[in-house]
Amino acid sequence: MSAEAEILSELEAIRLIDPHTHINPYAPASRTLADILGYHYYTELAHSAGLSRDRIEQEGLDPKEKVGRLIPWLHTIENTAQYSWLLEMCQVFFDFDDSRITESNWEALYDASFEKMKSDSWESIVLDISGLDQVYLTNDFDDALTDFDTQRYVPCLRTDDLVFHFEKEETRERLSSATDITVKDAESLHNALGSLFDHFTQNNARACAISLPPDFIPTPVSTRRADSVLHKVAIGIHLDAAERVELRSFVFWALAEQCSERQLPFNLMIGVNRRVYEGGVFQGQDLYDKRVSLIQYRQLFNAFPKVKFPTSVLSETSGQELVSYAWIFPNVIPHGHWWYSNIPVFIEQDCRARLQAVPQTKQIGYYSDMYKLEFALPKFAMYRRILARVLTADFVEDRGWSTERAVELGYRVLRGNVESVFGPPPKQAAPSKTDANALATPADDSPIVSASEDPTTT
Amino acid sequence: MSAEAEILSELEAIRLIDPHTHINPYAPASRTLADILGYHYYTELAHSAGLSRDRIEQEGLDPKEKVGRLIPWLHTIENTAQYSWLLEMCQVFFDFDDSRITESNWEALYDASFEKMKSDSWESIVLDISGLDQVYLTNDFDDALTDFDTQRYVPCLRTDDLVFHFEKEETRERLSSATDITVKDAESLHNALGSLFDHFTQNNARACAISLPPDFIPTPVSTRRADSVLHKVAIGIHLDAAERVELRSFVFWALAEQCSERQLPFNLMIGVNRRVYEGGVFQGQDLYDKRVSLIQYRQLFNAFPKVKFPTSVLSETSGQELVSYAWIFPNVIPHGHWWYSNIPVFIEQDCRARLQAVPQTKQIGYYSDMYKLEFALPKFAMYRRILARVLTADFVEDRGWSTERAVELGYRVLRGNVESVFGPPPKQAAPSKTDANALATPADDSPIVSASEDPTTT
Amino acid sequence: MSAEAEILSELEAIRLIDPHTHINPYAPASRTLADILGYHYYTELAHSAGLSRDRIEQEGLDPKEKVGRLIPWLHTIENTAQYSWLLEMCQVFFDFDDSRITESNWEALYDASFEKMKSDSWESIVLDISGLDQVYLTNDFDDALTDFDTQRYVPCLRTDDLVFHFEKEETRERLSSATDITVKDAESLHNALGSLFDHFTQNNARACAISLPPDFIPTPVSTRRADSVLHKVAIGIHLDAAERVELRSFVFWALAEQCSERQLPFNLMIGVNRRVYEGGVFQGQDLYDKRVSLIQYRQLFNAFPKVKFPTSVLSETSGQELVSYAWIFPNVIPHGHWWYSNIPVFIEQDCRARLQAVPQTKQIGYYSDMYKLEFALPKFAMYRRILARVLTADFVEDRGWSTERAVELGYRVLRGNVESVFGPPPKQAAPSKTDANALATPADDSPIVSASEDPTTT
Repeated sequence: MSAEAEILSELEAIRLIDPHTHINPYAPASRTLADILGYHYYTELAHSAGLSRDRIEQEGLDPKEKVGRLIPWLHTIENTAQYSWLLEMCQVFFDFDDSRITESNWEALYDASFEKMKSDSWESIVLDISGLDQVYLTNDFDDALTDFDTQRYVPCLRTDDLVFHFEKEETRERLSSATDITVKDAESLHNALGSLFDHFTQNNARACAISLPPDFIPTPVSTRRADSVLHKVAIGIHLDAAERVELRSFVFWALAEQCSERQLPFNLMIGVNRRVYEGGVFQGQDLYDKRVSLIQYRQLFNAFPKVKFPTSVLSETSGQELVSYAWIFPNVIPHGHWWYSNIPVFIEQDCRARLQAVPQTKQIGYYSDMYKLEFALPKFAMYRRILARVLTADFVEDRGWSTERAVELGYRVLRGNVESVFGPPPKQAAPSKTDANALATPADDSPIVSASEDPTTT
Repeated sequence: MSAEAEILSELEAIRLIDPHTHINPYAPASRTLADILGYHYYTELAHSAGLSRDRIEQEGLDPKEKVGRLIPWLHTIENTAQYSWLLEMCQVFFDFDDSRITESNWEALYDASFEKMKSDSWESIVLDISGLDQVYLTNDFDDALTDFDTQRYVPCLRTDDLVFHFEKEETRERLSSATDITVKDAESLHNALGSLFDHFTQNNARACAISLPPDFIPTPVSTRRADSVLHKVAIGIHLDAAERVELRSFVFWALAEQCSERQLPFNLMIGVNRRVYEGGVFQGQDLYDKRVSLIQYRQLFNAFPKVKFPTSVLSETSGQELVSYAWIFPNVIPHGHWWYSNIPVFIEQDCRARLQAVPQTKQIGYYSDMYKLEFALPKFAMYRRILARVLTADFVEDRGWSTERAVELGYRVLRGNVESVFGPPPKQAAPSKTDANALATPADDSPIVSASEDPTTT
Repeated sequence: MSAEAEILSELEAIRLIDPHTHINPYAPASRTLADILGYHYYTELAHSAGLSRDRIEQEGLDPKEKVGRLIPWLHTIENTAQYSWLLEMCQVFFDFDDSRITESNWEALYDASFEKMKSDSWESIVLDISGLDQVYLTNDFDDALTDFDTQRYVPCLRTDDLVFHFEKEETRERLSSATDITVKDAESLHNALGSLFDHFTQNNARACAISLPPDFIPTPVSTRRADSVLHKVAIGIHLDAAERVELRSFVFWALAEQCSERQLPFNLMIGVNRRVYEGGVFQGQDLYDKRVSLIQYRQLFNAFPKVKFPTSVLSETSGQELVSYAWIFPNVIPHGHWWYSNIPVFIEQDCRARLQAVPQTKQIGYYSDMYKLEFALPKFAMYRRILARVLTADFVEDRGWSTERAVELGYRVLRGNVESVFGPPPKQAAPSKTDANALATPADDSPIVSASEDPTTT
């Protein structure tokens, strides 16, 4: 067995915590193939290739009919990484044997997968096959967080609406309903946010999260200015552009303060412009402007030295900045490979840069960003193959490391750091074959990024 | 034979349509080695290495003397990709055996090549050896398009002058001569452009094209504003900066409207600054500012959903944006590898990204951008070698594809999509060994990017 | 032996001139391991991983104690390229046998290295083992340049303070002390700078150098404006933002004029923001904004055609611009791989691009940027391994070059061009096994980049 195959095999044995997804904990697994093919990656690519939006977003469309309408377009995207995920899911979960999903074989696939998915234990089967110990969620700020297992499906407080849509009456009403506090000034905003953070942390939330447009520059805003702007919003006076900037900065900053008080990581997902292509399919309308720099977060990173900022960037041209900022700022933690950068060519480049220049204890290799559980498997598989290749080329071949040592490093970024950054799962996962989890930081400091609990140093 | 060699061999057998060149249809092939070495890639690199501009731009310089003055500088650029094209041309077309062109062997090469090039059939020989079925041109808007075979040399309406030099009296006089319309307001401009588009489409034009500076942001301009600005231009009043922006946007938008009406693709070549180095050699003065984003084209892409925009970007830092915008917008089509990005290291990265994330039916692999026919061969050869390597690594090795299937994908991006985007050549090329051309889109939609005519799905 | 191993072996035999370092000529080599581990690359990475700044910047800290405090953090950065340099230094210079420096083995290493370093000949031993013929320095503008061998440690006039801190009284007093000229207008500034340049060139200085922030745009400033601004500075009137821009541009431009008069190369290091992370360790506070373009230097490059500008860029996203500008402008010379771009993944990409598209005579492969002599060895070793790989893949394999020819090219960028750009060392180095140094430019021009002295063409 080659070193790469050996390393890959070890990486494949590591059980996973998926630190960022959009899983609905009340319906985590797919119910039909339409849940899988309805993922925006497929609908938007098929639409880009020529499928009209109306055809798949028709009101009351039957799931099988929807899949039937997508199938003829699949051949146009067979080359894509996204298609390779689809194929791998069908092969692993649904015993699909062919190398292409076509108009001739899709119905059999649909029916066979439907049989499997209707099992009550389908969710457990998927978790088991995928080796998933925990799945982090993306929860609306007013999510009740009831009636699901928050040890398995870990809440995460998503705050885009609070920062970017606070002017909307709907947002403020949702906030008021969730907290029994009506925001009319800085203090009431702090109280309302405090109430949300209480609720979330009491329900095992492990992170606050937000996606940010390329032109966002967080800065502190005085209480006096915030009072004035929040008062205007409360009584329905339209804000001008400068006031809107102040409002957003103030709410954002107040969230960071909450994270600091509660030692909650604040996940930043930097660089998305919403609704760029307004004729696009559901969730297939967003793009970006690569002219963004982490220098825009300079004040934030300096102001909150005790807040961990697991940071994702949308443009591959931000990859080196993320590495450099993580190399200098203790509180900046590279986090996965996001969205348009989540294809092999960009993952490989970023993976190499992070492993070459960011401390191994403060980088999180991957998250799936999935909407349905089945996607963790092929997405992490893609990442593990790239990671195995990079570990082999840059560490075993170039630096003479043993494969065991390379696997230790792989374990760190794939699993160990998820625990050290966000906290371990309630029940410890079965110990891996390697001792990779044994890395510890010295006792004489209080590192912002604490290593695993095992006190043994390697 | 390795998979890569097998794939390359199949790719080398594919006959070509070159969808963007600067060929002069009245003198398509070189007449002396000076036509080849006079290509700005060589003169500018030699100048960069120290050759003074005067030496090669001297009035009335004899071709052989010009070559003789360039030869001593060739060793300084032996490492460049551009030099490797030169060597490959000399080896394939002129039976050159050495691995370097030097002061000792150049005269024999000059004389031998001169003998070959003076043959009446030299043009046909080059087309034949290069496997070229069609060559797209870059025509001035007032080009008569007469006296050449527009089925072989396909016209393309180049519009830089109209958009960026409309204030120049010379441009307006050329427009007036070509159309018999004097532009004095929005309506007359539309009429004049309509007349140009009539002329071009009647002469087999397959695209409108333009190169654009990094700071250009196309936006719609009202007829009222356009009338006012065009009136000022017509009567010779100097425009202020804001008016100039309006003028350019209006003309550009009017071109897009013509493309929409006539279903003509609009080639965008984004990102060049002209005359940055004013002391540079002919055509060797342009550079760029990488701070450009496709977000600047957001309104355009939304406003013209039925216009195909084959898009080239000058900076490699725009490569991922082009992939992402093509993944989301049905009308954005990645188009070749332009100019400063046309070297292996950047082609390889972009080629991988496009094949991993853009539908295979809407990407055009390569064009030569050549001024003389001999250049298609080495430039496409460079691309085919990179394509073969990427297909082997990312598809055969990583995804388990057969070499046949990899070649089908290669055929698509190298040839098939040129036809589906711009239209097929009049006589169908001899069928290739593969069935790659058989990809079709489903009948129940009207995709903006239509696939080939063969209704069989693979 | 594989082609790559053969090429690497030849590259390793080449003696070096290191064209940019921060060596202190009065204490060039390390005295204890604290000098090595105190390099900001280690302190900032350990701090990033959690080590508090106070622990290692404590007043009067004993060197061994300092090392002892860093050691427990080393395991967090074992993955980094920087750690691999450390290990290679310990292995080559201090007979260290282990693959990790740990809490159990560091004291023995400390003591063994201390024994070696206390030898009077340690400096010579390091130079000898490292194959270093010359080491270029970074000197303050008021450096006396006395009492060291300027043939071995070549002075370089660093000018950041003059351009960016001229408003500080301290800077002006230092200038006045160094030159006996009090600057109060444009003319006295020119005189003062002239005096500095006299002093430096009389002491074998080979370059003027400066690091520049991303928003710097050099432009000429009229003498009248400069007189006004310099007068204000002289009498202590605070400048407004526009005046500060003028001041900086004027001083910068005046430096370029001095370089032009004296034919001294002007090293530009483009893109650093200082003190971004104010809580960072010494020298570990600087980052950058990738939104910078070489178009900002358009006027400069045009205005000084006779000044060579060896140019470094901080962001990898500037790598292609540097290649393109060097391809067009005779006076732009890509120079090494700077700081955050000095890790294998970015070096490899930039190395490939430069070798594929910049004349071989005008690119300088590498400099160490070191503070202590021991670092040249592992840093150049890293570069040589990458260079060997690129030469093998892109030239031997892709273009059919012989290994000898590949080594010639490697010699050019590693050593030959340092001499042709900055001037040869006083005593010719022992001839290498290859004839690579034999490249010459033709006699009939005065190239800005003169090739080596050997008149033989290859």
